[in-house]
Amino acid sequence: MSKIKLTYFDFSGGRGEPVRMALAIGGVDFEDHRISIDEFRQMREDLPLKAVPTMEVDGVVYTQCNAMTRYAGRLTGLYPEDPWQAFLCDELMEAIEDTSNALVKTFGLEGDEMKAAREELVNGTFTQYLNFFSQRLDAAGGEHFADKRLTIADLKVFSWVRSLNAGFLDHVPTDLTSRVAPQLMEHMNRVAKDPRVASYLADIE
Amino acid sequence: MSKIKLTYFDFSGGRGEPVRMALAIGGVDFEDHRISIDEFRQMREDLPLKAVPTMEVDGVVYTQCNAMTRYAGRLTGLYPEDPWQAFLCDELMEAIEDTSNALVKTFGLEGDEMKAAREELVNGTFTQYLNFFSQRLDAAGGEHFADKRLTIADLKVFSWVRSLNAGFLDHVPTDLTSRVAPQLMEHMNRVAKDPRVASYLADIE
Repeated sequence: MSKIKLTYFDFSGGRGEPVRMALAIGGVDFEDHRISIDEFRQMREDLPLKAVPTMEVDGVVYTQCNAMTRYAGRLTGLYPEDPWQAFLCDELMEAIEDTSNALVKTFGLEGDEMKAAREELVNGTFTQYLNFFSQRLDAAGGEHFADKRLTIADLKVFSWVRSLNAGFLDHVPTDLTSRVAPQLMEHMNRVAKDPRVASYLADIE
Repeated sequence: MSKIKLTYFDFSGGRGEPVRMALAIGGVDFEDHRISIDEFRQMREDLPLKAVPTMEVDGVVYTQCNAMTRYAGRLTGLYPEDPWQAFLCDELMEAIEDTSNALVKTFGLEGDEMKAAREELVNGTFTQYLNFFSQRLDAAGGEHFADKRLTIADLKVFSWVRSLNAGFLDHVPTDLTSRVAPQLMEHMNRVAKDPRVASYLADIE
């Protein structure tokens, strides 16, 4: 199989970041093609489903971020082989996509309309999902989300929580996670200290 | 592990049907808990993410339909073990969720607003995705979506195409698939003739 070319925005979050993280920390040699919003607008109509991330393999452009993350996880041993542990991973990863879908609905809004939509998101979906992830983490033993070790589910939640905390989403308070789900802050710090993740973060920052 | 209890609406489609199909045709003994819209409204606030399908295992209620379908596929041999074939399955299954998310946005609309939204859906997302699935089927050899055999990706697309054709979505023409992607009609008929699927359909109809 030829080298994977992953195309996504040049920022540390969103739907593409967990794929990049999994490939990078698992030591897969891939092309990390980072694009600007303008470049995306220019290529959008030619993309299979008009969205990024895309993953090009052997000249074919593929879609769907969780499919990519899972594939990267399989290549790198970061996805459980046990069916039930894989299910636990999958449930978390798909739930993160629910939050992305809810967030995307607020893109393009402005002024008071944006503020109201984001506040509803923060107090509704985001709070609900932070609580849900916190409960799942607790049920899995409190350290990792599945398989008692670092998996792509950890990378997915890590990347999302980091984005919430980063302050680049208007009207999303950077202390939301620490107020609602302090356990997820501990989880974020735990993942960041994993030597493979620490090395990745040092490379990109 | 205790018996799986799957809770979903009592109709042959939507996010729960591929899970039921995979469990049933794979011979898994599960509780097929079918609910009405009213029952859903009554239980909604108590559900982990206020949505169905849910899958209860050992007293815990889990969410996310594709995670469930994939788990059912693993239990029944309907999900490829090969990482690349599994990726091809996953891409298709997640793309179907894109169409569900687009459809859900039209729920609750009425009159001309509903008509306009559904026509936009039909001519936009639905047509785009039918073409996409058709191309993927072609690339996989034209018979099945992955692994050259029946997998959960086939069940997922089958269930979706059947729903499009069924006429229970207002303003979605029942000949949409046959006009846009005749290959997917052939695929639907092929899947329906699989003895395991034929037996399942005979049981529920």
